[in-house]
Amino acid sequence: MRGLMQDAPLLISSLIDYAAQYHGEREIVSRTIEGPVQRTSYAAMQRRAKQLGNALLSMGIKLGDRVATLAWNGYRHMEIYYGVSCIGAVLHTINPRLFPEQIEYIANHAEDQFIFLDLTFVPLMEQMQDRLPKVRGFVVMTDEAHMPKTSLRNAVCYEKLVNAHSDRLAWPVFDESTASSLCYTSGTTGNPKGVLYSHRSTVLHGFAGCMGDVLGITSSDSILVVVPLFHANAWGIPYSAAMCGAKLVFPGMAMDGKSIFELLRDERVTMTAGVPTVWLMLFQYLDQVKAETGKIPELPHLKRVVIGGSAAPRAMIKRFWDDFGAYVVHAWGMTEMSPLGTTGNLLPKHKDLPIEERLDVQVKQGRAVYGVELRITDDEGKELPRDGKAFGNLQVRGPWITSGYFKGEGGKVLDADNWFTTGDVATLDPDGYMQITDRAKDVIKSGGEWISSIDLENEAVGHPAVAEAAVIGVAHPKWQERPLLLIVRKKGAEASKEEILEFLEPRIAKWWMPDDVVFVDELPHTATGKLLKTKLREQFRDYKLPGA
Amino acid sequence: MRGLMQDAPLLISSLIDYAAQYHGEREIVSRTIEGPVQRTSYAAMQRRAKQLGNALLSMGIKLGDRVATLAWNGYRHMEIYYGVSCIGAVLHTINPRLFPEQIEYIANHAEDQFIFLDLTFVPLMEQMQDRLPKVRGFVVMTDEAHMPKTSLRNAVCYEKLVNAHSDRLAWPVFDESTASSLCYTSGTTGNPKGVLYSHRSTVLHGFAGCMGDVLGITSSDSILVVVPLFHANAWGIPYSAAMCGAKLVFPGMAMDGKSIFELLRDERVTMTAGVPTVWLMLFQYLDQVKAETGKIPELPHLKRVVIGGSAAPRAMIKRFWDDFGAYVVHAWGMTEMSPLGTTGNLLPKHKDLPIEERLDVQVKQGRAVYGVELRITDDEGKELPRDGKAFGNLQVRGPWITSGYFKGEGGKVLDADNWFTTGDVATLDPDGYMQITDRAKDVIKSGGEWISSIDLENEAVGHPAVAEAAVIGVAHPKWQERPLLLIVRKKGAEASKEEILEFLEPRIAKWWMPDDVVFVDELPHTATGKLLKTKLREQFRDYKLPGA
Repeated sequence: MRGLMQDAPLLISSLIDYAAQYHGEREIVSRTIEGPVQRTSYAAMQRRAKQLGNALLSMGIKLGDRVATLAWNGYRHMEIYYGVSCIGAVLHTINPRLFPEQIEYIANHAEDQFIFLDLTFVPLMEQMQDRLPKVRGFVVMTDEAHMPKTSLRNAVCYEKLVNAHSDRLAWPVFDESTASSLCYTSGTTGNPKGVLYSHRSTVLHGFAGCMGDVLGITSSDSILVVVPLFHANAWGIPYSAAMCGAKLVFPGMAMDGKSIFELLRDERVTMTAGVPTVWLMLFQYLDQVKAETGKIPELPHLKRVVIGGSAAPRAMIKRFWDDFGAYVVHAWGMTEMSPLGTTGNLLPKHKDLPIEERLDVQVKQGRAVYGVELRITDDEGKELPRDGKAFGNLQVRGPWITSGYFKGEGGKVLDADNWFTTGDVATLDPDGYMQITDRAKDVIKSGGEWISSIDLENEAVGHPAVAEAAVIGVAHPKWQERPLLLIVRKKGAEASKEEILEFLEPRIAKWWMPDDVVFVDELPHTATGKLLKTKLREQFRDYKLPGA
Repeated sequence: MRGLMQDAPLLISSLIDYAAQYHGEREIVSRTIEGPVQRTSYAAMQRRAKQLGNALLSMGIKLGDRVATLAWNGYRHMEIYYGVSCIGAVLHTINPRLFPEQIEYIANHAEDQFIFLDLTFVPLMEQMQDRLPKVRGFVVMTDEAHMPKTSLRNAVCYEKLVNAHSDRLAWPVFDESTASSLCYTSGTTGNPKGVLYSHRSTVLHGFAGCMGDVLGITSSDSILVVVPLFHANAWGIPYSAAMCGAKLVFPGMAMDGKSIFELLRDERVTMTAGVPTVWLMLFQYLDQVKAETGKIPELPHLKRVVIGGSAAPRAMIKRFWDDFGAYVVHAWGMTEMSPLGTTGNLLPKHKDLPIEERLDVQVKQGRAVYGVELRITDDEGKELPRDGKAFGNLQVRGPWITSGYFKGEGGKVLDADNWFTTGDVATLDPDGYMQITDRAKDVIKSGGEWISSIDLENEAVGHPAVAEAAVIGVAHPKWQERPLLLIVRKKGAEASKEEILEFLEPRIAKWWMPDDVVFVDELPHTATGKLLKTKLREQFRDYKLPGA
């Protein structure tokens, strides 16, 4: 028997309509590529998203067509988020930090009809356009005064395009499982693969972002969106914020510490979100200010800092608290997960913990968001205990998690019970806090037991002479694999293999001890700055460990 | 093109499973009918809901079968919420305050298979059971020690039933639009009509309850659920609380001021929810304590009081703030709306308002919850402006709003665009705050303009001699209808028609002035305490107004 409730689809258009109707005056502030800070509102954004919707329809864009962006964080990018998805087309956010060959592959694979790009990327696209034969035209996200002379095919000025169309448009209504946006993962192996979100998954994920135990976004918030809008729908913030009328602040391309600090201060930011690298730059700037003025400047409104993308260091979590009384919400997710999976909020029993014990909780990646099922398994798929010690393959399931990649790339990605294997290795403690211990392909399998390469690296970089460390598994006749530690020494620093191993000894389990240490001049990295262990494993494939 | 996200249905079972997994130790505290306060947890509740699920399956309950409750607020009632819905049966919460004939009608109309009832209602059901031939048996919600001798057909003790079954049960998976629960509206005219909720509508509504701008429920909350669990799924709290692991406190049948106060204090309640009557009793108790001890006792943890069901008086909103620093979230909804429609939270611009101006905002019923579309129209269905002045028929639309009553009673309830007419008359101001001005059938239509009977009544009760007032429209040859004011004077108080009209004169528009005043000994009320204006209109149908 079906319930007798209205059959109202969950559509992204309802978000911007709600924001315009109930939070019409609420500000959206952007540092622009052209220079000045621009201020708009949800009411204006809805009007312009509708103008853009009409423009896209006039350009022949139909339900399901892909429209790409290559852009920094700003109000125009967010207008495109809504303008494209709300008419039933698919917003494809391209990560401009990828290698040009990857961008070319992605735009061709997605069959993007148009690319909307910031001024910054005009030269790149001019070079690449001949290799993007399916792209019908390029829209430069600027006004007529700043529109460059360009060889881009069918180049159009964004403001001219938008202003040429009416804001009268009734958003179309369609099935909520219709595709809304597309984002490619930048894997360390193989070609990038596209994750195709739906209106339903986006709205449900938006609800999650508004929960107090997730991101806790409310109408009182002013949110600096540091995480790029080309990353997994920028963690859902553009949707959750509209759902409750939060003020949004976009930093444009100025990610330096000073620019970020000024926005945090001037826009009375209560919550911000980004990857650890950005916060390192912020603290470098603050240290410099302190050296000049004798004190760290205040940010009295900042309450929450959401850190994800890679693990937030303990010192960073502590420093946000010490300097600003801001709580770091350590988060974990994946492009394949829309991306929210876990968030590190405290339970009532943690509220009065001394800071160091609280940090023990906060360094973990947090607890599953309602809507995401989480478990860890061994290589046979058997579920492992949630005891905070056992670590296994992290698997996830739920309505905003991928069921397969665009055009079937990568084949079947779910098991018989719909579990998606994340490729991360993690522990789950009895309270449900998850901690990533490794990537599944990097974990070292020694005599049937697993050794975390990340844990070993973290200990090794604690040695004063070590600048960077990598641990990989190398084949071993008896143990299957044993750890090999690769070290880049700090400039001018000295440390022998024996010294390093001696340093590690009291810090790790005896059977985790690397079988050898090799000193190298540098380690290989991916475009997004992660250690490229595939290359290391290849390089040291035939390495003979002592005693092997 | 469909998105490539997992096809995971939104099911109520995921709520209790999440709470058990991630907030297993979190408490659920109940004042029991048998006497003592009982403490359980989400983990235990999930186990017992599964035991109950197995019991129901063994009793032959199938997908879609209705299982009724006739019970106060307690942990067993909440276990039944989950046990019944999670196996795909339909939880039918019967309001025991209805007249016996209505209860009989409802149970027969719903075709309830079993009725779960508190000890309190054993005598009532013993009398009524012969008129409920389809009910196969009765489950008395108590333990074996308190199980009464009863003539009830196939009477079973709840604890005996639950304990006889295993807690091993994998909740079935089915379509999310499957019916989950049923609640009848107690209209003032005609038979009660059933609203049939779905798993989808319940989970979506649960998300809304967790939003900071709606009820703001989080894992830090301790919630005293004063609103009866037989009212429109108790405003969604049993679902939202499980979604984020909030502590729950149930008052049983002890709704007196002292009992409620003690729970608020002892269970460190941060949020509570109920109708205005209960809070009047609480304040009467507090006044008495103050008379005895010289001061109002403290409730340092109480932060939010959700008031709905009928309008919260300004003085009540102010008093919660003055006495406890607790913010009243004025809410409006309907059984037909799951029930959340609007909630009266502040916007950032209101935060620093002086208290009296803030109360001007808080006396309104609040702003639309994301997921609920709201508009006001005239009798021709034309949308009226959101200027805070125009008042019209309030219409709603959205995924947790009814599409029609159970078994088609009442016929088609949506217009061509899916709008549901609430029967309320309201204003909407430019910020989106809605204020109920009347019931549509009570509004007085005078010469093409509308006069709010409620506004007139509110002004009239301001007169020191007036105990209660009712305004109805009486036929008028020239104006179609004109207002007639009926007054119950306070014991021993005197006031003439002229004095009353003189009192009203500076307070209302001239053309709103009642054409006559009639003094009566008492006014008729419904079972739930609302003015029964149908009866008044009948009684005064042929009343001849002066000058008519």
